[in-house]
Amino acid sequence: MPENESIDEYVETKIARLGDLKVEGSDEVIPLEIAYETYGTLNNEKSNVILICHALSGDAHAAGLHKLQNPTQDKKLNSVKGWWYSYIGKGKAFNTDKYFIICSNVIGGCMGSTGPKTKNPKTGKPYQSSFPFITIKDMVNAQKRLIDSLGISKLFCIAGGSMGGMQVLQWAVAFPEFSEKCIVLASTSEHSAQQIAFNEVGRQAIISDPNWNNGEYGENVPRTGLALARMYAHITYVSEAFLKERFGRKLATKNILNTDFDVGSYLLDKGESFVDRFDANSYIYVTHALDHFSLGTGSSLTKNLKDVKSEFLVIAYSTDWLYPPYQSREIVKSLQVNMVPVTFCEINSDRGHDSFLIENEKQTDVIKHFLGSKYVR
Amino acid sequence: MPENESIDEYVETKIARLGDLKVEGSDEVIPLEIAYETYGTLNNEKSNVILICHALSGDAHAAGLHKLQNPTQDKKLNSVKGWWYSYIGKGKAFNTDKYFIICSNVIGGCMGSTGPKTKNPKTGKPYQSSFPFITIKDMVNAQKRLIDSLGISKLFCIAGGSMGGMQVLQWAVAFPEFSEKCIVLASTSEHSAQQIAFNEVGRQAIISDPNWNNGEYGENVPRTGLALARMYAHITYVSEAFLKERFGRKLATKNILNTDFDVGSYLLDKGESFVDRFDANSYIYVTHALDHFSLGTGSSLTKNLKDVKSEFLVIAYSTDWLYPPYQSREIVKSLQVNMVPVTFCEINSDRGHDSFLIENEKQTDVIKHFLGSKYVR
Repeated sequence: MPENESIDEYVETKIARLGDLKVEGSDEVIPLEIAYETYGTLNNEKSNVILICHALSGDAHAAGLHKLQNPTQDKKLNSVKGWWYSYIGKGKAFNTDKYFIICSNVIGGCMGSTGPKTKNPKTGKPYQSSFPFITIKDMVNAQKRLIDSLGISKLFCIAGGSMGGMQVLQWAVAFPEFSEKCIVLASTSEHSAQQIAFNEVGRQAIISDPNWNNGEYGENVPRTGLALARMYAHITYVSEAFLKERFGRKLATKNILNTDFDVGSYLLDKGESFVDRFDANSYIYVTHALDHFSLGTGSSLTKNLKDVKSEFLVIAYSTDWLYPPYQSREIVKSLQVNMVPVTFCEINSDRGHDSFLIENEKQTDVIKHFLGSKYVR
Repeated sequence: MPENESIDEYVETKIARLGDLKVEGSDEVIPLEIAYETYGTLNNEKSNVILICHALSGDAHAAGLHKLQNPTQDKKLNSVKGWWYSYIGKGKAFNTDKYFIICSNVIGGCMGSTGPKTKNPKTGKPYQSSFPFITIKDMVNAQKRLIDSLGISKLFCIAGGSMGGMQVLQWAVAFPEFSEKCIVLASTSEHSAQQIAFNEVGRQAIISDPNWNNGEYGENVPRTGLALARMYAHITYVSEAFLKERFGRKLATKNILNTDFDVGSYLLDKGESFVDRFDANSYIYVTHALDHFSLGTGSSLTKNLKDVKSEFLVIAYSTDWLYPPYQSREIVKSLQVNMVPVTFCEINSDRGHDSFLIENEKQTDVIKHFLGSKYVR
């Protein structure tokens, strides 16, 4: 067993089959299945539940270890860590000695929950592009069904970064009494024209792939378009400083038939590995959900947040140019106008948008303090 | 004749056939043809010459009007303005009453000068991807040949924005005594890893187009890939504020089968119109020239600029996130260390990188003052 890996950290993704779900964009229901994982122990009062919401390409495997069926010799790995492994666990920011933590995969995605790859019960074939339009609201309604099915009537906290942060906001608006605390990291109350533009070019790369076939591509996936979308998006996830430090102007030593520069080779690898794990239709559906999500800004955001009851922690990152700190401050301001208790923290980090996944040392204490303290109105 | 259009502004692009050129990346020479335009009158002393260098997708038509053979009825146009029309002309920043102004198309491009679409004299067929690798140095050497052929032995000024600014820097380094003044707008002494990454994804879009055929595509051009590259690049040319003001979150009213949002429709149009006027191979060659150009930063830049004799004006734009102002300040600092006279101006503009093409009111006086004043050592 490799160092730092303990047998009690092994987890498995479970699937909850929850009947049908009505979504905003369709009159027809879809079969609701949700992939989820849990960490820690539910207390008797069921009062220690934290729900974790993932970002665009995330999944239910937020913490612990997945045992690999075929351990990769070259990487000396026999397990895969959850995407927020360093945040969730014994003694970590989200401490599994104290909290019962749930992370579920969003609907519309491709990591176990209902999405375009799910079989349409009417046809017996995968929905693909006949899957209905999905919104952040639909994602949250589906999560709510999961929480209800687990017999949990109140959450202690909901936390998420990027698209996860939008889900947190949607929870706070749609179910104001449901969660005591909310944590929004590196997120926004709505996409700006520039953020829509970034996603738009990614979608155009996919739909102009010759394999696209209006989304009915079956096994013949539009790899090239999806890889391009990811390469392009990846630049927005990292900072200029990170790219400079890691790659600078170094020439490529691999992928040299396709690129001159090391940073190009890095992006090619990012595109390739993404295509192996993500579905092109899901990319279209989930980015649409992101772009169409809108709680407004300024006075309209304030109005939309007027019934919020949860206490908030909002964290932004200095070099995040995909979800710049000013968008977090918009949320904070509207919460303050509504007299909602809110702590705002802008963390100095040179890792860009991905800081929320990485900078655990800088924010563990902030999160611990927020979870451990009680605001008295 | 439409308003503000005077008959004496009509200009035509000329072609200079200048024999052979040896470029850095090949042992074989290429036939040198340069498309260029001139505005104003050369004085007897030949001391009033200003050379204008264009950006990535620019051409020799910097000023005046091209008469349209087939006037477009819908746009009520019977002529096409030069890309720096509002900067070059009678009484403008580059005043044609005083100066004789030359703008030439770069080699490697596709707007009349030698490039991948040029016929290889050895085969009688267009070079396409057998065209040799081209550098900014090669572009400048070719321009120098044009200037020599016109019997001009000294320039009063060389000016250019973006890639044009890199050519200006290269002129100042390679021919230190040749130009009295240099103007560098919205540019850099070398691309950072992020700037290379932006170009890299554009190139990947082109070379993964099914029509690409290793660059030997003939008439069957990789439209989709080139349009994607341009859409993506265009986002980096404009500011977040511009996109917000012009499009916000408005839904599309055209291109609605391909996009939900107005900003998406705008980008689709930008991609389409670019493909009609630009060559995919040229896009690859010219972006490579951009990425491989390097005068260094910090002390290595200072060393590379040590022989510079020209007086400099460097202009940066507050919302330019493609060539951020800090890169202009690097140039200014290295010039200062070398005791080169330099004026630096950071212009507040919400138009992003494209500010150098647009914000003429804000910089006309700065340029006029710089051209009209004489620095005494």
